[in-house]
Amino acid sequence: MKILVLNPNTSAAVTEKVADSVRRIARPETQVTITQIAHGPETLESYYDESLAAPHILAAVRQAHEDGYDAIVLAAFCDPAIEAVKEISTIPVYTLEETAFSVALLLGNKFSILTEKKHKESVKRQHVRKYGLESRFASVRALNMSVAEITADPERVKQVGREVMRRMIQEDGAEVIILGCASMTGYADELERDLGAAILDPIVVTYKVAEALTEAGVRHSKIGLYATPAPKKII
Amino acid sequence: MKILVLNPNTSAAVTEKVADSVRRIARPETQVTITQIAHGPETLESYYDESLAAPHILAAVRQAHEDGYDAIVLAAFCDPAIEAVKEISTIPVYTLEETAFSVALLLGNKFSILTEKKHKESVKRQHVRKYGLESRFASVRALNMSVAEITADPERVKQVGREVMRRMIQEDGAEVIILGCASMTGYADELERDLGAAILDPIVVTYKVAEALTEAGVRHSKIGLYATPAPKKII
Amino acid sequence: MKILVLNPNTSAAVTEKVADSVRRIARPETQVTITQIAHGPETLESYYDESLAAPHILAAVRQAHEDGYDAIVLAAFCDPAIEAVKEISTIPVYTLEETAFSVALLLGNKFSILTEKKHKESVKRQHVRKYGLESRFASVRALNMSVAEITADPERVKQVGREVMRRMIQEDGAEVIILGCASMTGYADELERDLGAAILDPIVVTYKVAEALTEAGVRHSKIGLYATPAPKKII
Amino acid sequence: MKILVLNPNTSAAVTEKVADSVRRIARPETQVTITQIAHGPETLESYYDESLAAPHILAAVRQAHEDGYDAIVLAAFCDPAIEAVKEISTIPVYTLEETAFSVALLLGNKFSILTEKKHKESVKRQHVRKYGLESRFASVRALNMSVAEITADPERVKQVGREVMRRMIQEDGAEVIILGCASMTGYADELERDLGAAILDPIVVTYKVAEALTEAGVRHSKIGLYATPAPKKII
Amino acid sequence: MKILVLNPNTSAAVTEKVADSVRRIARPETQVTITQIAHGPETLESYYDESLAAPHILAAVRQAHEDGYDAIVLAAFCDPAIEAVKEISTIPVYTLEETAFSVALLLGNKFSILTEKKHKESVKRQHVRKYGLESRFASVRALNMSVAEITADPERVKQVGREVMRRMIQEDGAEVIILGCASMTGYADELERDLGAAILDPIVVTYKVAEALTEAGVRHSKIGLYATPAPKKII
Amino acid sequence: MKILVLNPNTSAAVTEKVADSVRRIARPETQVTITQIAHGPETLESYYDESLAAPHILAAVRQAHEDGYDAIVLAAFCDPAIEAVKEISTIPVYTLEETAFSVALLLGNKFSILTEKKHKESVKRQHVRKYGLESRFASVRALNMSVAEITADPERVKQVGREVMRRMIQEDGAEVIILGCASMTGYADELERDLGAAILDPIVVTYKVAEALTEAGVRHSKIGLYATPAPKKII
Repeated sequence: MKILVLNPNTSAAVTEKVADSVRRIARPETQVTITQIAHGPETLESYYDESLAAPHILAAVRQAHEDGYDAIVLAAFCDPAIEAVKEISTIPVYTLEETAFSVALLLGNKFSILTEKKHKESVKRQHVRKYGLESRFASVRALNMSVAEITADPERVKQVGREVMRRMIQEDGAEVIILGCASMTGYADELERDLGAAILDPIVVTYKVAEALTEAGVRHSKIGLYATPAPKKII
Repeated sequence: MKILVLNPNTSAAVTEKVADSVRRIARPETQVTITQIAHGPETLESYYDESLAAPHILAAVRQAHEDGYDAIVLAAFCDPAIEAVKEISTIPVYTLEETAFSVALLLGNKFSILTEKKHKESVKRQHVRKYGLESRFASVRALNMSVAEITADPERVKQVGREVMRRMIQEDGAEVIILGCASMTGYADELERDLGAAILDPIVVTYKVAEALTEAGVRHSKIGLYATPAPKKII
Repeated sequence: MKILVLNPNTSAAVTEKVADSVRRIARPETQVTITQIAHGPETLESYYDESLAAPHILAAVRQAHEDGYDAIVLAAFCDPAIEAVKEISTIPVYTLEETAFSVALLLGNKFSILTEKKHKESVKRQHVRKYGLESRFASVRALNMSVAEITADPERVKQVGREVMRRMIQEDGAEVIILGCASMTGYADELERDLGAAILDPIVVTYKVAEALTEAGVRHSKIGLYATPAPKKII
Repeated sequence: MKILVLNPNTSAAVTEKVADSVRRIARPETQVTITQIAHGPETLESYYDESLAAPHILAAVRQAHEDGYDAIVLAAFCDPAIEAVKEISTIPVYTLEETAFSVALLLGNKFSILTEKKHKESVKRQHVRKYGLESRFASVRALNMSVAEITADPERVKQVGREVMRRMIQEDGAEVIILGCASMTGYADELERDLGAAILDPIVVTYKVAEALTEAGVRHSKIGLYATPAPKKII
Repeated sequence: MKILVLNPNTSAAVTEKVADSVRRIARPETQVTITQIAHGPETLESYYDESLAAPHILAAVRQAHEDGYDAIVLAAFCDPAIEAVKEISTIPVYTLEETAFSVALLLGNKFSILTEKKHKESVKRQHVRKYGLESRFASVRALNMSVAEITADPERVKQVGREVMRRMIQEDGAEVIILGCASMTGYADELERDLGAAILDPIVVTYKVAEALTEAGVRHSKIGLYATPAPKKII
Repeated sequence: MKILVLNPNTSAAVTEKVADSVRRIARPETQVTITQIAHGPETLESYYDESLAAPHILAAVRQAHEDGYDAIVLAAFCDPAIEAVKEISTIPVYTLEETAFSVALLLGNKFSILTEKKHKESVKRQHVRKYGLESRFASVRALNMSVAEITADPERVKQVGREVMRRMIQEDGAEVIILGCASMTGYADELERDLGAAILDPIVVTYKVAEALTEAGVRHSKIGLYATPAPKKII
């Protein structure tokens, strides 16, 4: 089984981080390639960024078909171009947000999302509604630290993150927390021990679900939302 | 007041059709420009098509800011790149699907959407959920005729469309019907008389709402879903 | 085009305030009449008040038909007798709450409502549910000042209102705020600048939507919720 | 315990029918008065009719307080002026639609409503949403016979009603059916035996719930939706 | 009429408390038996406890049929084995949580639930969703006192309970509060006077609804969720 | 990694069928034990049956902890005693219905469930609501053949099943179909080819998800819905 893990931005550092996570959990017999898109924004923090990345994501997905991959993991917690990708793909595609949500449903009554910036809270709420999961959603809360602060003081990130999560549990009713921001990755186990909630690292659960369901022969439906686009004149 | 009506595909025929509709209803003192994107698919019938059109839509939106437009109407009933467009825009942007839904809410308890192809029914259901309006949604039904059939026999399109709408009213509880497919445009008045339901032509209602709200100084919120993207390194 | 703006209470002061707002934004070629009901409560602050006003609202609506109006704007943020009015009316009727909600949907992910008294929060929550918009609703919060306080100290109203709105944005996720209480009207622009959220003055957006949609020939559906009542023996 | 059963229309025939039902099930020690409003429409079939009846309903409710009643049952399956009535009332008020819905929840997963005319289906759907019960709602279907047909041929009413109910069960998933139209009253037991579903006669269940909860000292909350209206200047 | 009130745990103290409440409100002509299951946990505080109690509840329900009871009230605010019980029962069964929810709907826009321990908040949220009532649900909050604290200091329970309820009203929008924890029973009237909200004691309202609806001949539907199980080989 | 696949009924034939499915897809390095409960009903077709099976399921789960299993798959498409099992378990537990629903979300906009008997449609609708997934749910439809018919004529089962699924796709908008009834198992691939929809065999996807997530160290949250029950006096 060959799986492509595609980082849909152009940050080599992020790709490396994703690669670290995936290599630790990939089964030895799976051939995993971890790569990034050829061109596009260094990070995806807006729908605008996603629009710029989309053509390069789609190109990489097409290439993956030619290269004989059995499945693709799109490794960004915003599911960029998810519908377009599933439309053109005949092999399974798993994205981080959608898959982490599905896994969260199995672990407790309500889940919360940790995000980085305040305005992303609105975006996450919209996504939860788009996926039809509002009834299982406890809250989204942002770290709300500047990139400078995050870089300068990792210890403080951890402390602030822990405090935000404690409020998700105490005030919002979260039983499961999804680490929707890269700066918290790597602390999941420690936080899980301290806080009691199930803490999900999206890349980990998505990769494993992709590996498992692909092995089982599961494919996305091509008769509705993800129907293959008809060929079309493009000027 | 200067309004840009942007057809987000490259079909001159569609642009002309939109122009006809808009010119009939635009107020004389509004300067309306009706145009289309410079490059991209001839029609938008999939998320994939929309991804291809997006960079050109975004370029046109940026240009509209430089050209001093007061508002933009994005003239396709699939709201392509709607969030990205509103993120980068500081002038109001109105899109056909979203605006037609908002107007439908004012006219009856439940609305239905007429679409062209069967698989688009899933897409429309997803959109209705994304916009949080399932409780006001009666149904979506497709004409389900091939383009060849549609072109060959306009009279039959009308007849089939009428039959589909009658089922929306009788079986689905629709009181308002949105003409979500170009082939039915132009028949709204006649159908409204025959069927009794309110029939909405999205371009008409969206253009008028855009004109009115822009005049009233209404702007979209820039603190959440549509926050202006931070500048970013693009490779 | 002739539009009747009907204040459904008997306060001349409120009618004058509405008239000020409408005259500032009405198009010169529209003939607008701003009036109030002949008899009834001085303000509408309960369903009971609305019941008392209803017969006089309905009489005014009938008269508007005889006087050849093309549309009616019912100028109170509680949509009094909305269904009865639409049932007997064959010309379009736009009400403030419903229309402001529809416009809010176009401007951000979630909207909040500012109201005057604590117990009206329950009423607004019920209305949001009745209109099927809970998924797009952030919160309702009351100023919670007595009329005496409001009258005595306009500067404090502004200050309290600003503080309440800040909480809507910070704690409730509001991106759009509807000024559902008269005492805040007139501050929309200033608040919008300060708080960043889109602030809606219901009379302004409703009047403009009414003007625009009426010009476009839009009418409410008469086959379901607003079917014309059959004549009936009344004792 | 003194209970007032108020028919909110002016049809003596309907009042008599209600009285028959109530007398059969009222406990001997309860003093029940069954009456009708002094003036108003002969039947309530629209929101407009309800607006006309409202002042007379409210007057009767005030009178009931003076006459020392312990509770009021408002005997029409459209809950006319329900909020206004509960606002001005300090004694419990039970209405047919709301109470029948609450009882239906206890008897099966989903309930359907039988109504008389097609356009009332929209009204019932709106009510179900207003009461927040869409998730437990199977469907509403109309008999769709003219009054003439209903009067002329009671046997056919029964036959058509049975056929409609069979479709509610087979196609819509109804387990409980609420007889929301007077012409079917009296057949509940027979239909229940034939169809297997629980069939609810709203006046019966509402009266009994009112009697029971009043005896238990239950009262509606006066701090939110039903807060007592402040006195007000009425012109 | 013979009603069995079944305490589905083995605490004689709880059974006695239930008996006190029921005897105060039962009609003299009703023959009420208040009893408890023969074997099982002393209290039901988890789904696990409920699983252990279930066989004994089911046995008691079967016995009730043989003993000629007309209805059963299952007296625990967690509705243990509710579906299984209704499946095997041909006489009406009323449970505390479900019935209290249905009554709460009649008394205000939103209800809250007072519970004992923090983790039960998740359970109650799940139940509210299972019953399809999220839209009418304000909140659940726990007393969060240890059993030792509750036993040692009844006065403090009352004080903490009052404070928690005040927050339900002020912060969560509750108009009706359901006493979902035994330690608060008996204070309903006093709290209702102090707080203004309607306070429901589940055993009281459920018993009275059971008595009333049974008298009216109401039965649960046996064609769907509660269909009688087919006989089956058990090893 | 050691996984216990527990058939929660006492049919050796079903256990064998499950074993066949699991062995085909289990990874060679996983030690899988497929077994059934020691006592209980031969099949689980009602909540009553589940209540009878529950003590034996719970005993088997406890034993699995002692035997050092890393995860448990509960192999029945009704999730019997799911909450109780997760409460007492500190190792992950995956159940067929819940997991199949989570996987279905990743494959299309809406899913349908094929069930055996008509009355189970109500049960499945309740489950979908309990899991908060109504917005992603297309429909449930029953084969509605007697066991005799199913046994006698497998070819007709296939034919009827295919026809029912075709209606799910054409009339209900299903893109994903979950084989919620054993008689259809084994036909998934063939049906998927014929119908185009994604067809899920619950045991297959659940086993693979369990294997994958357990390997990734994912555990259910123990702070809310699935909190470990306190020890308790049992009589």
